[in-house]
Amino acid sequence: MKNKLQVEIFGHRYTLRGDADEAYAQELAAYVDKKMSEMASHSRGTSPAKLAILAAINIAHELFQLRSRQKERDTLIGDKTRDIIESIEEQFEEFKLD
Amino acid sequence: MKNKLQVEIFGHRYTLRGDADEAYAQELAAYVDKKMSEMASHSRGTSPAKLAILAAINIAHELFQLRSRQKERDTLIGDKTRDIIESIEEQFEEFKLD
Repeated sequence: MKNKLQVEIFGHRYTLRGDADEAYAQELAAYVDKKMSEMASHSRGTSPAKLAILAAINIAHELFQLRSRQKERDTLIGDKTRDIIESIEEQFEEFKLD
Repeated sequence: MKNKLQVEIFGHRYTLRGDADEAYAQELAAYVDKKMSEMASHSRGTSPAKLAILAAINIAHELFQLRSRQKERDTLIGDKTRDIIESIEEQFEEFKLD
């Protein structure tokens, strides 16, 4: 059964349906609320609907950046791992009995 | 100088200001538009403003999940690295001259 959770974002109450627990739903709502407030401080007089769109774009940007950094890190870890394996193989080579 | 980029989300045009290039801004807009369409298909008759909020929450959820998976992965990589170092040390121990 899915939970029905009440959250407040930018002065309005919303009902979320999902498997998330109360604390997590509040954390998500607080994050979106914070982003909308940030957007509002940069562009006064903007409608809440547009602020929500701008917040969504901003959060999508953070998601894309994190994905991109993760991809770069995976490549780096792969390269480093290969370097270490090569180095170990060289070290063992020195002990090799001909 | 910051770019001014026009994007279309859910039938409305928005002007984004930032350092992002055209292609990236369009990618972000398409992502938010897709999320709003998904939300709309699950809750018909919902206002675009609420759909934008739900999309923002949904994208924040993806961001949080990715952060959490990355943290778990970092711990796993740390553990595996320690295991490998210990194993290498044991291997070298066998070659040690007393």
